[in-house]
Amino acid sequence: MSTEQASEPLRATSAIPGFHAIIPAGGAGTRLWPLSRRSYPKFLHDLTGSGRTLLQATWDRLAPLAGPDGVVVVTGAAHREAVTGQLPGLPAAGLLAEPSPRDSMAAIGLAAAVIRRRHGDDVVVGSFAADHVIHGQEEFAAAVAEAVAVARAGYVVTIGIAAREPSTAFGYIEVGAPLHVAGAPRGRQVAAFAEKPDAETAAAYLETGRYRWNAGMFVVSAKVLAEHLAARQPMLQAGLERIAVAWDTEDRDEVLGREWPGLTKIAIDHAVAEPVAAAGGVAVVPGDFGWDDVGDWASLADLLPERADGSRILGRPADVALADAPGALVVPRGDRLVAVLALPGVVVVDTPDAVLVASRAAAQQVKQVVDALGDLDRDDLR
Amino acid sequence: MSTEQASEPLRATSAIPGFHAIIPAGGAGTRLWPLSRRSYPKFLHDLTGSGRTLLQATWDRLAPLAGPDGVVVVTGAAHREAVTGQLPGLPAAGLLAEPSPRDSMAAIGLAAAVIRRRHGDDVVVGSFAADHVIHGQEEFAAAVAEAVAVARAGYVVTIGIAAREPSTAFGYIEVGAPLHVAGAPRGRQVAAFAEKPDAETAAAYLETGRYRWNAGMFVVSAKVLAEHLAARQPMLQAGLERIAVAWDTEDRDEVLGREWPGLTKIAIDHAVAEPVAAAGGVAVVPGDFGWDDVGDWASLADLLPERADGSRILGRPADVALADAPGALVVPRGDRLVAVLALPGVVVVDTPDAVLVASRAAAQQVKQVVDALGDLDRDDLR
Repeated sequence: MSTEQASEPLRATSAIPGFHAIIPAGGAGTRLWPLSRRSYPKFLHDLTGSGRTLLQATWDRLAPLAGPDGVVVVTGAAHREAVTGQLPGLPAAGLLAEPSPRDSMAAIGLAAAVIRRRHGDDVVVGSFAADHVIHGQEEFAAAVAEAVAVARAGYVVTIGIAAREPSTAFGYIEVGAPLHVAGAPRGRQVAAFAEKPDAETAAAYLETGRYRWNAGMFVVSAKVLAEHLAARQPMLQAGLERIAVAWDTEDRDEVLGREWPGLTKIAIDHAVAEPVAAAGGVAVVPGDFGWDDVGDWASLADLLPERADGSRILGRPADVALADAPGALVVPRGDRLVAVLALPGVVVVDTPDAVLVASRAAAQQVKQVVDALGDLDRDDLR
Repeated sequence: MSTEQASEPLRATSAIPGFHAIIPAGGAGTRLWPLSRRSYPKFLHDLTGSGRTLLQATWDRLAPLAGPDGVVVVTGAAHREAVTGQLPGLPAAGLLAEPSPRDSMAAIGLAAAVIRRRHGDDVVVGSFAADHVIHGQEEFAAAVAEAVAVARAGYVVTIGIAAREPSTAFGYIEVGAPLHVAGAPRGRQVAAFAEKPDAETAAAYLETGRYRWNAGMFVVSAKVLAEHLAARQPMLQAGLERIAVAWDTEDRDEVLGREWPGLTKIAIDHAVAEPVAAAGGVAVVPGDFGWDDVGDWASLADLLPERADGSRILGRPADVALADAPGALVVPRGDRLVAVLALPGVVVVDTPDAVLVASRAAAQQVKQVVDALGDLDRDDLR
């Protein structure tokens, strides 16, 4: 739709005209317990030792592309203070607080509707989770710029991550034919989305060379998104629109209180991405940056540098004493010493009120322990 | 020497005339780090969940046999307050504070010399470590009573524990011919003491039926002990005697300060027990009570009741959440939740300023971790 895009992708460091970033900051990150809690979830933590939390790093990536006034964070009301505390550059208007979680379509749809009312029909929004880890700002910016160009051609655009391995932890994108959109030489049709596969299917996907990981990044014209929603989720779209109209007025709380609880709970994948893909309306651009959703302690360990003894530490090395623990992951966040002896591959996560000791192989099962807290009447620690 | 002993062992609950108990309360218990520290060692902790510390349990066992005025605790000056705090029944005169550690012969020899000066040549002293776990008060009292009877016949007497397994963690006593001492039907000569054996030797010991574990318990007439020391360690004996003469006078500190630092550092085993045994002067009575020196976390685990899921907890069960951790030992003493997932046989010891995570098989190597604290400049945690 736009004619302003050059035929080359935009440079990494320049803002992308008309682009607005949405950061849905939700989810408890239960598998990263006890660091991540319902009361202080994953995105509020520095999980890479960079000195920046995942939310801050997401902001750092997107603010240069959308401009600080072009970033909107959607989060739970309970996290409002933590988010504004971590993002001093975020304008007050850039924080949308949800009264309760109503899944990703309501969150992203609301942000898109509010942005569209504020900035008009020409805006393109891009939604990027607050709790993923990305390495390679230049590659990320290039992918977003291409995605915006494709979005201006009317597509819902996702960014497909090069699969490093036949992972069963992620959904996949089956890549289709090239699109030949100006400014987006690598844009292609999405043939289909695929749910998290079993190991055999994942291996088969990789074999074909046609599949990429679905990182849940969506870039789309706010107007196009509204049209898709109106066609496929008209009640949800109408509710979001009524809230968006009231958002920047004194009616916000009243309308929000009336409309929000009744909004359909549905993920953007099911509400828009999958049905629109089936109708040929979804595109993909490749993301050649490092990406991980840090789903559990094992995947976090893979992101951290390995020390000479084969261990990895997220925290101060002076807080850790290890003997014969290659492959161990130690997260000393309890302001105390963590000592590990003769337990290769152990995961120890220390916090002021709870310590987790687990085998790395069981990282996906941390939820079991969190569930057990209910039996102990220790809901306060979840 | 005494004619007051009946031909039957004394009853468990009655005091033993002329018997005085010495409790050497020393040793850091490094292998029980991080609960046991140089600053607050093993004997000051409740390691069985009984509600009594090892020191208190030792007092509870001995005070009925020696009377509360017949118990002397020898400990480091640094632990004076902790010891008196834990033993309100111990008279002030019952606490002997060592200016510095000079091994077991100086500690026990001093206590014996002080007791002899206070109570005369008829006293029999028995020395029992403050940090062992014993089950079976009646059997313990019976063994002590027999040992006192044999000691009155002029022997240095040890109590031999029935070996439950071919342990390589303990020294052994080779039992010789019966002694036929009145009041001690089970008293026998000690043929020899044997150091901690290798596995093969330990198995061979067990096979013979002639070997018992050496729990380091010695019962001897204070006068006989002084004579052995005068013969074998005359300098040490002379120094101890000078200190004992001054102990209950205003000269104590001056004499102690002058004599103590020069005393020979030697264990009672090498100073007296082994050489006197070689000369036929040591006897043994069997101890048919449960005994353990709780040398490391693995042996502690064996002392605790097993829960339905195969784990053992020293602390409040509400502080522990376990999933798939049979054989685990968890010691929640850090006032927070300890969660363990998929780590059978793991040992987790949580304290306010340090947490240890180790495999049970490596329990003997905990010292490695403690040594590593020096490299981290965390001597404060040792």
